[in-house]
Amino acid sequence: MALEIERKFLVRGDFRPDVVNSTRIQQGYLCSAPERCVRVRLTGDQGFLTIKGGTSTSGLTRYEWEHQLPVTEALELLSLCEPGRIEKVRHRVDFAGKTFEVDEFGGDNQGLMIAELELEFEDEPFERPGWLGQEVTGDARYYNSSLIRKPYRDW
Amino acid sequence: MALEIERKFLVRGDFRPDVVNSTRIQQGYLCSAPERCVRVRLTGDQGFLTIKGGTSTSGLTRYEWEHQLPVTEALELLSLCEPGRIEKVRHRVDFAGKTFEVDEFGGDNQGLMIAELELEFEDEPFERPGWLGQEVTGDARYYNSSLIRKPYRDW
Repeated sequence: MALEIERKFLVRGDFRPDVVNSTRIQQGYLCSAPERCVRVRLTGDQGFLTIKGGTSTSGLTRYEWEHQLPVTEALELLSLCEPGRIEKVRHRVDFAGKTFEVDEFGGDNQGLMIAELELEFEDEPFERPGWLGQEVTGDARYYNSSLIRKPYRDW
Repeated sequence: MALEIERKFLVRGDFRPDVVNSTRIQQGYLCSAPERCVRVRLTGDQGFLTIKGGTSTSGLTRYEWEHQLPVTEALELLSLCEPGRIEKVRHRVDFAGKTFEVDEFGGDNQGLMIAELELEFEDEPFERPGWLGQEVTGDARYYNSSLIRKPYRDW
């Protein structure tokens, strides 16, 4: 059983000088329920099917199952997904020995940027870059599965 | 892209003399929407994750994607599923060169038996065994994903 421990933050400054690489991502949901989401993602030339459980009471830990897909299968499964699609560019940003993933959303979520940091344990310390804004870990509005139903444009 | 062509029938007589083997199956749904169902199945010591699209207008053809799972992963994913679980014994029944799968349901669907026949093409001819009852192909009430929400006991 894989558990991911992740903290999420808004972005309030310019992270671009620290970007290592950037990848375009499109993803849809076969199921976007917060307690059992089934995601289809196409990132560059790789597809992934990912199943996530609900978050722990702390909001940081979540069961995750993942399987790699050929692009053709990812496209077939994307066509079955619920209406709505997440489009974003994911920037890998290295800072003080840690890797942040900054998602810059497009489409109906244009203007939203979220930084994610994966940790080994829940209270692991890390250095905050200057562009890191308010923490939104566990705030369901910022789940990608929520942004499909209620995009940032409509907030 | 895999398409399954399948006809479904009620069972009105004794198919047991033609049974080749029988396997206990438990399955749950991460998503039970008719147009995109995501099923987790444990059959004997094999797990499967299966994604099905909606049926064609004829009700016979359906997109299907399947991935085999280790038992531990199947049990983890079953624990994430929507409330309700299908329990059944699947009997393989050979008749006149064709293989029927007869599902004998348990739990809340006790008393229901459905025979399925997979075909190569939609109007492929086949010989009907005496125990084969009314055809229910395309009748959504008999989908396993529907039987979780509205089990046979409550009909």
